[in-house]
Amino acid sequence: MTSLPSTMQVAPLTVRDIVHHAERVYPDRHVFTVERDGVTETTFTEVVARARRLARALEGLGVSRGERVATLMWNNQAHLEAYIAVPTMGAVLHTLNLRLFPDQLAFVINDAEDAVILVDASVLGLLARIRPRINPRHIVVRGTPEDTYGLDLLDYEELLASVDDAYLWPDLDESEPAIACYTSGTTGDPKGVVYSHRSLWLHSLAIQTKNSIALGESDRALLVVPMFHVNAWGMPYGALWCGADLVMPQMFLQGEPLARMINDLRPTVALGVPTIWMDLLRAAESGEYDLSSLRVLVAGGAAVSATLIRAYRDRLGLAMLQGWGMTETSPLVAVAIPPAGASGDEEIYYRAKTGRLVAGVEIRVVGESGEVLDHDGASVGEFELRGPWIASGYIKGRDPESFHDGWLRTGDIGTVDAHGFIVISDRRKDVIKSGGEWISSVELENLVMAHPSVHQAAVVAIPHERWQERPLCLVVLREGHSLDVVALREHLGPHVASWWVPEYWATLEEMPLTSVGKFDKRELRRRHAAGEIEIHGV
Amino acid sequence: MTSLPSTMQVAPLTVRDIVHHAERVYPDRHVFTVERDGVTETTFTEVVARARRLARALEGLGVSRGERVATLMWNNQAHLEAYIAVPTMGAVLHTLNLRLFPDQLAFVINDAEDAVILVDASVLGLLARIRPRINPRHIVVRGTPEDTYGLDLLDYEELLASVDDAYLWPDLDESEPAIACYTSGTTGDPKGVVYSHRSLWLHSLAIQTKNSIALGESDRALLVVPMFHVNAWGMPYGALWCGADLVMPQMFLQGEPLARMINDLRPTVALGVPTIWMDLLRAAESGEYDLSSLRVLVAGGAAVSATLIRAYRDRLGLAMLQGWGMTETSPLVAVAIPPAGASGDEEIYYRAKTGRLVAGVEIRVVGESGEVLDHDGASVGEFELRGPWIASGYIKGRDPESFHDGWLRTGDIGTVDAHGFIVISDRRKDVIKSGGEWISSVELENLVMAHPSVHQAAVVAIPHERWQERPLCLVVLREGHSLDVVALREHLGPHVASWWVPEYWATLEEMPLTSVGKFDKRELRRRHAAGEIEIHGV
Repeated sequence: MTSLPSTMQVAPLTVRDIVHHAERVYPDRHVFTVERDGVTETTFTEVVARARRLARALEGLGVSRGERVATLMWNNQAHLEAYIAVPTMGAVLHTLNLRLFPDQLAFVINDAEDAVILVDASVLGLLARIRPRINPRHIVVRGTPEDTYGLDLLDYEELLASVDDAYLWPDLDESEPAIACYTSGTTGDPKGVVYSHRSLWLHSLAIQTKNSIALGESDRALLVVPMFHVNAWGMPYGALWCGADLVMPQMFLQGEPLARMINDLRPTVALGVPTIWMDLLRAAESGEYDLSSLRVLVAGGAAVSATLIRAYRDRLGLAMLQGWGMTETSPLVAVAIPPAGASGDEEIYYRAKTGRLVAGVEIRVVGESGEVLDHDGASVGEFELRGPWIASGYIKGRDPESFHDGWLRTGDIGTVDAHGFIVISDRRKDVIKSGGEWISSVELENLVMAHPSVHQAAVVAIPHERWQERPLCLVVLREGHSLDVVALREHLGPHVASWWVPEYWATLEEMPLTSVGKFDKRELRRRHAAGEIEIHGV
Repeated sequence: MTSLPSTMQVAPLTVRDIVHHAERVYPDRHVFTVERDGVTETTFTEVVARARRLARALEGLGVSRGERVATLMWNNQAHLEAYIAVPTMGAVLHTLNLRLFPDQLAFVINDAEDAVILVDASVLGLLARIRPRINPRHIVVRGTPEDTYGLDLLDYEELLASVDDAYLWPDLDESEPAIACYTSGTTGDPKGVVYSHRSLWLHSLAIQTKNSIALGESDRALLVVPMFHVNAWGMPYGALWCGADLVMPQMFLQGEPLARMINDLRPTVALGVPTIWMDLLRAAESGEYDLSSLRVLVAGGAAVSATLIRAYRDRLGLAMLQGWGMTETSPLVAVAIPPAGASGDEEIYYRAKTGRLVAGVEIRVVGESGEVLDHDGASVGEFELRGPWIASGYIKGRDPESFHDGWLRTGDIGTVDAHGFIVISDRRKDVIKSGGEWISSVELENLVMAHPSVHQAAVVAIPHERWQERPLCLVVLREGHSLDVVALREHLGPHVASWWVPEYWATLEEMPLTSVGKFDKRELRRRHAAGEIEIHGV
C-alpha cells in the first residue's frame, strides 16, 4: 500500500496572522481609550503601525527572542500595542496584575526576569515602591507621571517617535512562547503559565464561534475585564482578528462611568466580573443611561446568580452570558448559552449554570478515588480539562499536583450533564463537608443573594464538633435592611435539603475581595478563626 | 536569561475531538435523511454509535492505518457515519464524485488504491461499469440495489449488525491524513489533495465563526452541496462539533423537492451552488412553500450574480451569502458578508463580491511578472493563498506549478481591496485578453444575466486577428424571449468600457455543465473551434 500523506500546508499558527488580518481586512475599525478628559479614538491601521515602532524600539533596547517585556497598565491603546508588538516580534509579553500586593508583584517580575517594563503613568507609584527589589533593564512610562520617584524612565511616545515603522515581523514557530500570565492565587507565591502562539491563535478563533462569544465585525467590545486578567479573556486578539471595535475603559470601572461609556460609545458586547455588573445595574436603574446597544453582557471570573441574570433581562431587556475559565485555560472553557428553543424561566435556568463546554475543550469529572464519573448532572467530582489552549504545567514546574495524565486539575468541584452543561458547586478548597456530604457554598450564596435584604453573601466552612464542618453565611446587607436569620432560613427552605441551611450567620460592612475581585473566602476563614466575626446563631 | 517556554498542552487537533464533542455535548441533535418514501431521523448519539460499529467492521475487513476507504454516495446518514468512522479510526476517507466520467472514476480509485468502497445502492450501476478496471478488496453496498450486476457485495447494515459498538478511537497525530478529495478538473487526469486531521479541525472551527457561516447549535443545515464536493464545504464536521442538525437530501436536488424539504424540515441554513438556488427560486415563486425558516442561503462553487441575490432578498426576504473556495482550500477562503452598517443597494453590492477574506487565510495578488500587487481593489493579478487549511501540493506531487514559495496558486484572476474584499474576474484559463487588456468574462456574464431575456450566459475568448482575443457571449434565453443583440449591448453599455462589449453572440438550448455544475467553458470553446456555434455578430 502506497501511503497518501497530507498535502496541506503546515502554516504555523502565530499571532502574526492576527495582526496581518487586522491590517489587511479591518484597517478602519476603531480602538477607543477612555481618558480622564475625554475619549481618544484610533484605527487598527494606526495601532499596528505604532506596534511596529514599538517592536523596533524594543529591539533597540536589546530585547531578544523569548525575552520578557512586562506591562503594568490599564486597558488602553498602548497596552494593545504591546499585545501586538511583543509576541509578534518573538519576545514574551508578561502582563502584570495591577492589583497584586507589592510582594507578589516583585516576585513575578523577578521570576519572569522582565527585561523591560511598560507602565502607565498613573500606576508608576506602585512600581516605584518595589523598584529596589527588581532589576529590569528599562522602565518605559506611558503618559506624564505626577512624580517620577527618582526613577530612570523612558517615555513611551518619545521611544516610538525615535524609530520608524518599517519593521517586518519575523517568522516564528507556533510552539514559541507569546504571553506569560501569573495567577493571583490567594495562597503561596503566584504561579504562572505561558501561552504559546498556537494556543493564542486557536483561542482567538474559538471566541469568534457562534456557540461561544460569537465575536464578529458587527461588534464593538467594551473590555471591562483587565488585559492582565487572562488576556482580557482573549478579546484583544479576537477583536483584532474579526474586526470588532475595542473600547478600553482604563481605570474608570465603576457603575456610573461604565453606564455613561455604554450610553456614549454604544458597545454591542461588554465583558467583566459579576460584581461590576451589579454596580452597572444599580447605575442603570436611574434610567439616565441608554444601554440598548448591548447584545450581550459577558460575565466571568465568579459565579453569576440567576437573580442578576433575571434582573438584567426583566429590567433592562439585556441578555447576560456567563462564561467559565481560568488563567490556566486561556480562559475559554464553557459558555452558558441556553439550548436552542429554551425560553422564559428555562432560559434563566441555563444561563445561571456555569456554562456549556465549547468546541476544542474536553472535560472529565473525577471522583475522590480518581475514578472518572458520568456526565449525568448528578455525579459530583473535580473537573479536569484537556485541549490545545489548556495548560500542561506551571512556569518552572511549580505545583505539579495540579496536572496529571495530560489533564489540568481545575480545583473546581461539580457536575456535568449529558448535554455538556457544567455546574460548579465549589472550589475544592472551599468545599463544605458536613456529616460526610458535600454542601455547595456557591449554590447557597446564589440563593441567599436572591433575597431582597441581601447585597452580597459568602458561605465558608467552619469547624463543627458533630458534623466536622458546617456552613457560615456572611452577608452584606442592602441599605435599610437588617439581618433576619429566621427569614433568610425560611427563604432557603424550599430550595435545598434542610441540613444544607446554615445555622451560623454574620454581617459584613464590606465584602473582602481578592485582587481579581472575587469574594476572598480565605480572608473570611481567617477572620472567623481569629474570632473577629460576630456570629448570629439560630 | 532563563527561557520561559510555553506551558500549554500540545493536544493534537484531530477529528476525534469533534466526534467526542458531538456525543458528549449534543447527543440529541438530529440527522435527517430524505428517502424516496419519506424522511429518516436519527440522533448524533446513534450516528456516532453506528460509526463505531463501522470502524470495527472495517478493521475486521483488514483496513489499516492510513489505508483508503472510499465512498460513492449521496448525502445521507451512512455517508456521515463514514465521515466519522474512517478518519477517526486512522484510515483515510476518499470521497468519490458521483458525477465523474467513468474513466476519471476508475482513475481516482486506482490512484488512491481504495481498499474498500462504500456505495449507495442507487449508484451501484456506475461502479459496476468500471469494476473490471478497479481492484478494491471489498465493496459494501448501502440499501438494496435493483441489480447486483454480478458483483461480490457486502451489505452495509449486515456489516454493522455483525459487530458491537465498543470501539475506542485510537490516538492519532494531527498531521496524519484524514480525507482525500480529487478535483474535477476539466483537463487532464483529476488531481487530488489530502486533508489532515489538523486542517479539518481548524476548518471546522472556522466555519463556526461569526464572520463566516456562524454555524451554531441554533442551526439546522440543509446540505445540498455534495459530501464528495470538498467535504460538503466542511459542514458535516462543523455541524457535529457545534450541534447543528443536518438535513441530507440525497439525490432530491431539484427546485421543487428542495422547496418542499425546506417547507417541511425547517432548516435555518442551506448550502449549494448558484444554479440550484436559481431552480429553488423558480420553485418558490409559486408561493406554495414556506422558506422562512432559512436565515441564510449559502452559495459557492461559482459566482453568484447580484440579480439572484436581489431576487431572493426582494421576493422572498432571504439573505444569500456567497462564499469562495476550492478543493485545494478545504474550501473556506472568503465569505461575502457586507461590512457592518451596509444596507440597501450597498448591501447587495458587497454580497455580489466574491467574498471577504476569513480569519486564518492569507491572500496575495500576483502580477504577470511575479510581482506582488496592492490590495487596492484595482490591481488585477492571480490570487495566491496561504494558511493551515490550504494545500501545499497535490497527491503524488502532480502539477507542481500550482504551488510556489509555500503559496497555492489558485488560477483565479482578480482584485482584493483594502478591506479584504476579493473579486474574481476570471479563471486564468478563461481570461480574455483583448488588445493587451483584460476583459472579465465573469463580470460580463453577471451583467448579461441581469437582462430579463436571459436565463444563463457564458462568455469565452475567441481568437481575433486584430485584438488577439474578443469575447463571445453564449446565452440560454428565458422562455418566450429571442436573442436581441442590440438590446443586450445597450444593456451592457452603462456598466463597462465600450471595448468590453461583445460583438459576438450566440444562443444555446442548454448550458453545458461540468461534473460539479459549473458552466463548462472548455466545452464551449471546443464547440466554437469545431464550428458548431452559430454566431450573431453586430
